[in-house]
Amino acid sequence: MFFSEKLTQVTGGKVGICVGLDPVYERLPRPIREERWPLFTFCEAIVQATADLVSAFKINSAFFERYGSNGWVQMERLLNAIPEGPIVIMDAKRGDVPHTAEMYAEGLLRDLRVDAITVNPYLGEDAIAPFLQWEDKGAFILALTSNPGALELQGQLVDGIPLYERVIRIAKRMNGKKNLGLVVGATHLDQWQRIRDAAEPLPLLVPGVGAQGGDLTAVLNYMDGYPAPLLINFSRSVIYASDGDDFVTAARREVMKMKEHWG
Amino acid sequence: MFFSEKLTQVTGGKVGICVGLDPVYERLPRPIREERWPLFTFCEAIVQATADLVSAFKINSAFFERYGSNGWVQMERLLNAIPEGPIVIMDAKRGDVPHTAEMYAEGLLRDLRVDAITVNPYLGEDAIAPFLQWEDKGAFILALTSNPGALELQGQLVDGIPLYERVIRIAKRMNGKKNLGLVVGATHLDQWQRIRDAAEPLPLLVPGVGAQGGDLTAVLNYMDGYPAPLLINFSRSVIYASDGDDFVTAARREVMKMKEHWG
Repeated sequence: MFFSEKLTQVTGGKVGICVGLDPVYERLPRPIREERWPLFTFCEAIVQATADLVSAFKINSAFFERYGSNGWVQMERLLNAIPEGPIVIMDAKRGDVPHTAEMYAEGLLRDLRVDAITVNPYLGEDAIAPFLQWEDKGAFILALTSNPGALELQGQLVDGIPLYERVIRIAKRMNGKKNLGLVVGATHLDQWQRIRDAAEPLPLLVPGVGAQGGDLTAVLNYMDGYPAPLLINFSRSVIYASDGDDFVTAARREVMKMKEHWG
Repeated sequence: MFFSEKLTQVTGGKVGICVGLDPVYERLPRPIREERWPLFTFCEAIVQATADLVSAFKINSAFFERYGSNGWVQMERLLNAIPEGPIVIMDAKRGDVPHTAEMYAEGLLRDLRVDAITVNPYLGEDAIAPFLQWEDKGAFILALTSNPGALELQGQLVDGIPLYERVIRIAKRMNGKKNLGLVVGATHLDQWQRIRDAAEPLPLLVPGVGAQGGDLTAVLNYMDGYPAPLLINFSRSVIYASDGDDFVTAARREVMKMKEHWG
């Protein structure tokens, strides 16, 4: 199935909830920490408890690489345990010269049970292209990220236009296979009218709500009637909804609450 | 030992040769392909044959990630097999929001037997900072990359100054621990006078010679008398100097030749 069709299917073309899997060993409930594969066991329990409610899961590769090859083994096990239904995004923010980007695209996108990857645009169009070669796999290009310092470079004006908008224009040019979206953080509200105007009709992946403090209600007001899917990502507010043995039911309750409000 | 001291030690403060380890399974000599850990076996042989000649080895993480957790196991084995002497650069081009960048910094820089990592600056200063927290470990920030499309974003003028130069200024501001350098490709010769003027006195890692076609003689002319180390990276031209069983002696011969010319 084409990536654009999958995305429409899981979101109904509107707003979908994405659960971000960013496990930190020290924050896992004690019994989980004693398991053979703690990151896997923890994330797999969250996945099973929420898969019927969400549009997507987002694997944050850094939190697995943190533990070296052991972490990678757990990430691969997790990918294979995610049930059919939600799309899976590999949040790896890769970007390299074309010959090397091709390796990242094959290893992290083509060969894994994932539907999309996040890509850093700093190297330019020829370095983004390897991630767009498969119609059934997508890429979300970083436009405006959610961190406080994002605008330091991304907001620089080039001929009166912020750099992130230039990235959005490049992304639109490269969307021949309709498998491209943008990452836009919920934290820079003063930029959202501009982003909506520039981004339409690309799908958006929106991090930065929850622990990072972005104002989702305000973002959704800006995006009222937007003609493409929005994936709203929640990570820490879901996976650490409880630090006790009830973390699974707490995570499900948190997702249901958000779904009632915004899903 | 401080990173800056290590770097001066291995280069004599001048030009040093860096061998880039970018193994592609299909390009390895047939007997190597039949080994249990082919990427490891191949790279380890190159390392042993050249370690006394070079200033640095550069691990291109994409070429190991390409093979999933199996590739990561081989990368870890390789890191542990590199003898004392040359510095080791993890060419991973990571960049993410601070909370996530911290995970990359711990997993790929602090916890591995590496001395430095390459970092993508698109997310801004707060996202670069986690890679600079250890005085004995360094970061090379992407300023101007070696790919043909690099200038599409990196060359955009902001108040008359190319974006890569703005990145260089940020890097200089963040160099309090003297553990920061820049990545500048050898392929954009028309930018090199500007780069030299802006970059001094930061160390540079220079990819793009060899298979990518950069003109090293011209680069070294621009950098004559530069008061900081330059690491010139050679990957494919060394590791695939021969595709036969003599790849080890061919790689050594190639490094010796370059060392005579430029080392």
